[in-house]
Amino acid sequence: MQPLILTTFDWVPEGPRGYVRDLRVRWALEEAGLPYEVRTTNAVDRGADHLARQPFAQVPYLQDGDLCLFESGAILCWLGRRSPALMPQDEAGRAVVTQWIFAALNSVEPHAVAWASAVAKGAEPPATLGRRLDGLERELTGREWIAGAFSAADIALADVLRGPDRRGGLDGHPAVATYLARATARPAFRIALADQLEHFAKAPPPGPVGGAR
Amino acid sequence: MQPLILTTFDWVPEGPRGYVRDLRVRWALEEAGLPYEVRTTNAVDRGADHLARQPFAQVPYLQDGDLCLFESGAILCWLGRRSPALMPQDEAGRAVVTQWIFAALNSVEPHAVAWASAVAKGAEPPATLGRRLDGLERELTGREWIAGAFSAADIALADVLRGPDRRGGLDGHPAVATYLARATARPAFRIALADQLEHFAKAPPPGPVGGAR
Repeated sequence: MQPLILTTFDWVPEGPRGYVRDLRVRWALEEAGLPYEVRTTNAVDRGADHLARQPFAQVPYLQDGDLCLFESGAILCWLGRRSPALMPQDEAGRAVVTQWIFAALNSVEPHAVAWASAVAKGAEPPATLGRRLDGLERELTGREWIAGAFSAADIALADVLRGPDRRGGLDGHPAVATYLARATARPAFRIALADQLEHFAKAPPPGPVGGAR
Repeated sequence: MQPLILTTFDWVPEGPRGYVRDLRVRWALEEAGLPYEVRTTNAVDRGADHLARQPFAQVPYLQDGDLCLFESGAILCWLGRRSPALMPQDEAGRAVVTQWIFAALNSVEPHAVAWASAVAKGAEPPATLGRRLDGLERELTGREWIAGAFSAADIALADVLRGPDRRGGLDGHPAVATYLARATARPAFRIALADQLEHFAKAPPPGPVGGAR
C-alpha cells in the first residue's frame, strides 16, 4: 500500500506544540493503522508550493495518491471512508459521524478559540463556549463516545476541547471533561501527541525570513 | 419518494431574515430537485424536542426517513450523496467538495461572523477575514466554481460570503465578489431566498416566553 503523506510545518513556537492540527490526522492514521510519512513545509516562508496545496497557508494537508486534501475535518471524513476504525460502513452511520465532525469544527471550535484567546489576554471570555459545552454535557452524559462507537468525530471533538481544557475551560462540565480524558487516554492519541512533540522538539529554530535556510 | 423534512424557526427578527442557515439547505434541495416540506420549531421556547434534534438549539435540521441530521455542512454532504447536481459521483471528487464545505464553514465563516459583528458594533473589524479572502481571490481568479462543476461547496461558500458582502466586506476582492454574484444569480438560490423571506414574513410575532402560543 502506498503510504499516505501528511504535511505539517517544519517548526512552530513552543506555545502551540502539541496543539497543531496535524495531530488530528496523526491520531486518525494511528487509530486506522494506515501507513504514513510526515513531511514538512516552511512555517516562516509560506510560498507558492504551500498555497497550491493549502490556499490559506495553513497545515495540515494529506496526499493520498493523486488526491491532496486540506481541512482537518475533510481529511477525517476521507480517512473514515478508508477505515472502519474511524467510521461505520453504512452511509447513515457515516452521515452521523460527519455531522459531529462539523459540529466540533463549526459549532464548538470557533467558540473554543475565542474563549482561549480572551483568557490568554486576561480579557473577559465570551459566554458562547459555555452554551456549547452545556449542549455537549447533555449529549455526553451516560455516553462513551459522541456518535455510537469511537469514531473520527471523537478525534475532532476531543482535540477541539483540549484547547479550553488547558486553561480550565471545561470546569462545570464533568461529562465533557471525563469524555476528553477517555479520548486522550487512547494509545493512538498518546502516540500522535508524542510524535508531534518530538517532531517540533528536534526542529531547528527558524532563520531570518527570506534568508537561506 | 418520501419527502425530506426541513425544520427551521417559526419566527426570527427582521435582521437575520434571508440569512438563517436553513437557506443553504433550501438552496441545495432546489438545485437537486428533491421534494421537501418545511416545518418549524419554536424560536423563543427552545424545548426538549428541539434539543433532541439539535443539541445547541439551533436550526436547521433535516429528516430523511429515519435519519435526522443537524449542521448545515453535514446536511450538504448528505444531500450531495443523493444528487449529482450537488457532488460528483466519484469518491475523490466528493472529497474535494467536502474539503471546500469544511473550508467555507471552518476557515471562512468564523472570520466572516467576527468581521460582520465588529462592523455592526462600529468596532475595528479583525484582519483575519481579509487574509482568508486573499486566499479565495487566488483560488477563484479564472474559475467559475470552487471545486470543478457547481456543487454543494459553492452553496456553503457563497452563503458564508453573503454576510460580509452585505456590509462591503468583499471590497478589494473582485473575483470573490463576482463569484458570489454568479452563485446568487442561480434560480435555485432565488427560489430558496424568496421562500425563506416569505416564511418569516408571514410568521406571527412571538408571544411572551413560556406563554401560550
